[in-house]
Amino acid sequence: MAIKVHGSVTTTATMRVLACLNEKGLDYEIVPIDLSTGDHKREPFLNLNPFGQVPALEDGDLSLFESRAINRYIAYAYAGQRIPLMCENPKKTAIVSVWMEVEAQKYDPPAIKLTWELVINPTLGIPTDDAAVEEYVPQLAKVLDIYEARLAQSKFLGGDTFTLPDLHHLPTIYYLMGTKIKTVFTSRPHVSAWCADILARPAWQKTIEMKNYK
Amino acid sequence: MAIKVHGSVTTTATMRVLACLNEKGLDYEIVPIDLSTGDHKREPFLNLNPFGQVPALEDGDLSLFESRAINRYIAYAYAGQRIPLMCENPKKTAIVSVWMEVEAQKYDPPAIKLTWELVINPTLGIPTDDAAVEEYVPQLAKVLDIYEARLAQSKFLGGDTFTLPDLHHLPTIYYLMGTKIKTVFTSRPHVSAWCADILARPAWQKTIEMKNYK
Repeated sequence: MAIKVHGSVTTTATMRVLACLNEKGLDYEIVPIDLSTGDHKREPFLNLNPFGQVPALEDGDLSLFESRAINRYIAYAYAGQRIPLMCENPKKTAIVSVWMEVEAQKYDPPAIKLTWELVINPTLGIPTDDAAVEEYVPQLAKVLDIYEARLAQSKFLGGDTFTLPDLHHLPTIYYLMGTKIKTVFTSRPHVSAWCADILARPAWQKTIEMKNYK
Repeated sequence: MAIKVHGSVTTTATMRVLACLNEKGLDYEIVPIDLSTGDHKREPFLNLNPFGQVPALEDGDLSLFESRAINRYIAYAYAGQRIPLMCENPKKTAIVSVWMEVEAQKYDPPAIKLTWELVINPTLGIPTDDAAVEEYVPQLAKVLDIYEARLAQSKFLGGDTFTLPDLHHLPTIYYLMGTKIKTVFTSRPHVSAWCADILARPAWQKTIEMKNYK
């Protein structure tokens, strides 16, 4: 039975999982969940994720939600497929986990709010709250200052190779690079080079194509 | 060389790591970081965690930050010590990871804000913002409704045994159980029994003693 991703290909969390599956070159089926009609807030979707958020993943008899946990599962369950997205070495894995937490705890809170304000709300006809943007950009900048120092010493956040912490940034970086605040990334040389590098990955390009031709 | 925990034994994130080390029965040294004088915002602490937040952990030549990543490392690096805090089976591990993400992404945001308002701010002479409490309690209640359903089917969040997702809740549950909003936990029978069970663990009791007799 092929892997099933229940989600919406334009949402950051679904794109995060698709990017991971594409990096691994796995076959999967997308089961579209229509957020505009509230499919995610009722059965049968709530049976897959009681929190009512996309995506959820089914792999045989295993059912998972939370995009970062799903990707961790994919990275381990399909460790031998194409590139490793985690490490074998426990100490290197620990460093990768630290930067996965940094993405989730430090980077994502301002980044996802900015993505809503500058990308998602406008498509829903909701005007951008400029005061919110002015509040969140400095928060994001502070995180990216630390990334700039990290990426001056390490090609990727988790170490010398592309791993899950890098991948988990892709959806919000992709969306925010199309907005007026892109300079928060491009004004920092190492962050800018890292963004260009990870955005150019074929697996990410495939994820974008799926979004654009849905 | 013994494990070193650079932190403050009264903060939720440091307590989370100490609880994990205590469950494993590991020897460790606490290097106190005085938050009141801003030790965490300058060198040498910033060299351990550029984000300037406690705790940081050193284990030989490995240096880590982010409490949940530290605990994941401890669980794997010392898997054979006392009880396992993660699973060997990849599918069970994936379920444990889902509930670790739920704690970090869904439970902790309202729980930590309530802990600040009801526990930490009062000790700093800052009055509780009742409007904030009224905003966050329903958010927490909504998460605990889903926990109630989960814990009706599963003794612990991650499965049949106590694992990291349960442990990660301990500091905020402990603090909030001493406040006027404790009924958000105690009014839900399965959540209430789970709280009583995990709070009674000897490793957690040891963590509290360290806080009380610092």
